[in-house]
Amino acid sequence: MSAEIICIGTELLLGDILNSNSQFLAQELAILGIPHYFQTVVGDNLARIHEVINIASQRSSILIFTGGLGPTPDDLTTEAIASFFQGTLEEKSEIIEDIEVKFAQRGRKMTNNNRKQALLPKGADILPNLTGTAPGMIWQPFLNNVNHPQQKLTILTFPGVPSEMKQMWRDTAVPFLQSQGWGKEIIVSEMMRFRGIGESALAEKVNHLFALTNPTVAPYASHGEVKLRVSTKAKNEAEARKIINPIVEEIKAIALEDYYGSDEDTLEGVVGKLLTARGETVSVAESCTGGGLGAMFTACGGSSAYFYGGIIAYSNQVKIRQLGVSEADIEQFGAVSETVAQQMAKGVKNRLQTDWGIGITGIAGPDGGTETKPVGLVYVAIAQPHFVTASPSSDTISYELKWGINRDRQTIRYLTCCFALDQLRRKLLSN
Amino acid sequence: MSAEIICIGTELLLGDILNSNSQFLAQELAILGIPHYFQTVVGDNLARIHEVINIASQRSSILIFTGGLGPTPDDLTTEAIASFFQGTLEEKSEIIEDIEVKFAQRGRKMTNNNRKQALLPKGADILPNLTGTAPGMIWQPFLNNVNHPQQKLTILTFPGVPSEMKQMWRDTAVPFLQSQGWGKEIIVSEMMRFRGIGESALAEKVNHLFALTNPTVAPYASHGEVKLRVSTKAKNEAEARKIINPIVEEIKAIALEDYYGSDEDTLEGVVGKLLTARGETVSVAESCTGGGLGAMFTACGGSSAYFYGGIIAYSNQVKIRQLGVSEADIEQFGAVSETVAQQMAKGVKNRLQTDWGIGITGIAGPDGGTETKPVGLVYVAIAQPHFVTASPSSDTISYELKWGINRDRQTIRYLTCCFALDQLRRKLLSN
Repeated sequence: MSAEIICIGTELLLGDILNSNSQFLAQELAILGIPHYFQTVVGDNLARIHEVINIASQRSSILIFTGGLGPTPDDLTTEAIASFFQGTLEEKSEIIEDIEVKFAQRGRKMTNNNRKQALLPKGADILPNLTGTAPGMIWQPFLNNVNHPQQKLTILTFPGVPSEMKQMWRDTAVPFLQSQGWGKEIIVSEMMRFRGIGESALAEKVNHLFALTNPTVAPYASHGEVKLRVSTKAKNEAEARKIINPIVEEIKAIALEDYYGSDEDTLEGVVGKLLTARGETVSVAESCTGGGLGAMFTACGGSSAYFYGGIIAYSNQVKIRQLGVSEADIEQFGAVSETVAQQMAKGVKNRLQTDWGIGITGIAGPDGGTETKPVGLVYVAIAQPHFVTASPSSDTISYELKWGINRDRQTIRYLTCCFALDQLRRKLLSN
Repeated sequence: MSAEIICIGTELLLGDILNSNSQFLAQELAILGIPHYFQTVVGDNLARIHEVINIASQRSSILIFTGGLGPTPDDLTTEAIASFFQGTLEEKSEIIEDIEVKFAQRGRKMTNNNRKQALLPKGADILPNLTGTAPGMIWQPFLNNVNHPQQKLTILTFPGVPSEMKQMWRDTAVPFLQSQGWGKEIIVSEMMRFRGIGESALAEKVNHLFALTNPTVAPYASHGEVKLRVSTKAKNEAEARKIINPIVEEIKAIALEDYYGSDEDTLEGVVGKLLTARGETVSVAESCTGGGLGAMFTACGGSSAYFYGGIIAYSNQVKIRQLGVSEADIEQFGAVSETVAQQMAKGVKNRLQTDWGIGITGIAGPDGGTETKPVGLVYVAIAQPHFVTASPSSDTISYELKWGINRDRQTIRYLTCCFALDQLRRKLLSN
């Protein structure tokens, strides 16, 4: 017993839209504990939709369709499903009435095209659409018509509009699936997040855990971050946590400070919580990141408690006038230099009167690199509170980063912001 | 002859990540004029990957895989492809050397796990990965081994990390596909971008164009922006432009200033070009957007020519001290008020000595809203150069925005930055 997601629409094959419906449905299936092994995308073409239904219906017992329920001639989903399983389409008067009411509310008249949306195979139930005109259906077709390997096949259809699909899924499809016995066992997982360690290095440290079968441990990597997912299947959350927690704790003990949080935790959120707990504040002085680090800090609601603000010092004049960076040092060492990053960090900490100050200066490219200072060279400095360092001479710590000349501007900027947040996090943990 | 996209990764089936790779590859195939009828997602499971290869290789002649090239045991893509087509894996010493160099550059040592990434089927070519450790491959396996209906099958593999995949696609895969005769008839399109007008309002204005068959005109909407795609198929770019351009010009004449650019144009890029052409400069004072507008301005390489920097004035103290906002006005009118936005815009313009200054203050939520000042209320002010206004009393123009309490924090912040950029664009156009 497993589900399969089938998204229908030539716009997906042309890359005009991002397939966010698949992600939503995949998450929902995982929560309900319904196994799901395949997703397929196919265009608005009857023969190819039939081909996909043929393949999917032999290997999966719940087929979830999105898209192709609209009023235009290229919307073929219902027709294709009905004809494949030799069902007869019939017009549902409830749907016609519902569409008429919706058009009237918008001061419009229903068009003849819309009548098509009222056609469902005989025996199918309406899957109501509260906001749009395209309802879906829940249908368990007679399979002896088509000489089929499955005992029972359940078909659900949804329109492609994500907001309509989501509402219909939650209001009708989930209760239906639960009534069929699904969702009694749920999959619970914790996605553990790591910074400052590569995927392979972390994998070697926890290699022995990959062989576990309950819970399972699987690694993922994305954009400067490594993740481990610890999952299990259980009757309820409490049962699942009993299985997951010991392994999560074991991994934490192995990874130490490289682990920064789980699931919805973000670097900026974790740093915010640490600052709040310590009653400390931070400000930023940004050159190449141009405000990106400030934007990350303030992505968290309530960040005004610890984030006072910053200076976007993109030009040298702003570095000199607004941050007090030495003009002579800029001339001697360059705007992209360790000392300028340090002076920026100290400058913003002093001027904005915060406990911590972060300074960033670098070459994000694609132009501006030289032999000695290539694209990807970035200096990050953290000005620390005196109660941390107890020594004015060690009050600023700095880092030279070389992201390499092949990374693009946005990646270099994003990785730099993450690095700065992560270093502040480590400082906050260790002091 | 058609291509099929196969994305491999259990994280896609669990809904942990959005499948943006499929969209990118779909767009690229459309540009090259390579037909593409199916996309499949499958997890990290050898038997199911084989099943997918079996189905796809019978109906498509170019198989494009993403994901599953990492160093861990659940990365099975290369192994699965090789075993399906009875290829022998062999270690490529060039790959080992490349991985060692990359680890050394980051001050790390290659782990034993990474050796796996150097295994490719005999006869396959390396598809080089400039930034990551996982190379892909281009392989045309011997099909007589496997009793196969296609004459020739081409396999391309890419890592799942989007930035690496995109670079590898453009640098190596596209030239390879063109060398195989693809891209002779190309689909050329112009994606026209509009701001400050809704999808249906724009659609009504250009309704007569939707019936065209060559070029075709189709509308799209996303995140505060409306788009029209004008496309045609032709032997070369010049032929195609002859068909597209008259319609593009007609739409520009209809949409006027609501049209801001096409294709890769961004609001910040268009504003940057206008500022550069006028020899003018800008700075930002950001409260609720926290640096996001500065980050957008500096997303363009070379933005230092016109973007000097800004003040992230998240706390009131920073607004008062760094921007000269009146403390009394903050008390009387609140930090989220028209006058504070205006004083922020003027303050940053004066202190950073730029021609234009933008001030933003608002309530991005989820908390902090009140009856009179709900979440979503934002004030944007633009301080204009005196040579534009010729009057000190009209030197700052401001806007009250009500994004509504149902939008989330990030959306409110992003839409606000876009609005500010768009208003500056209109000012730059009209003066």
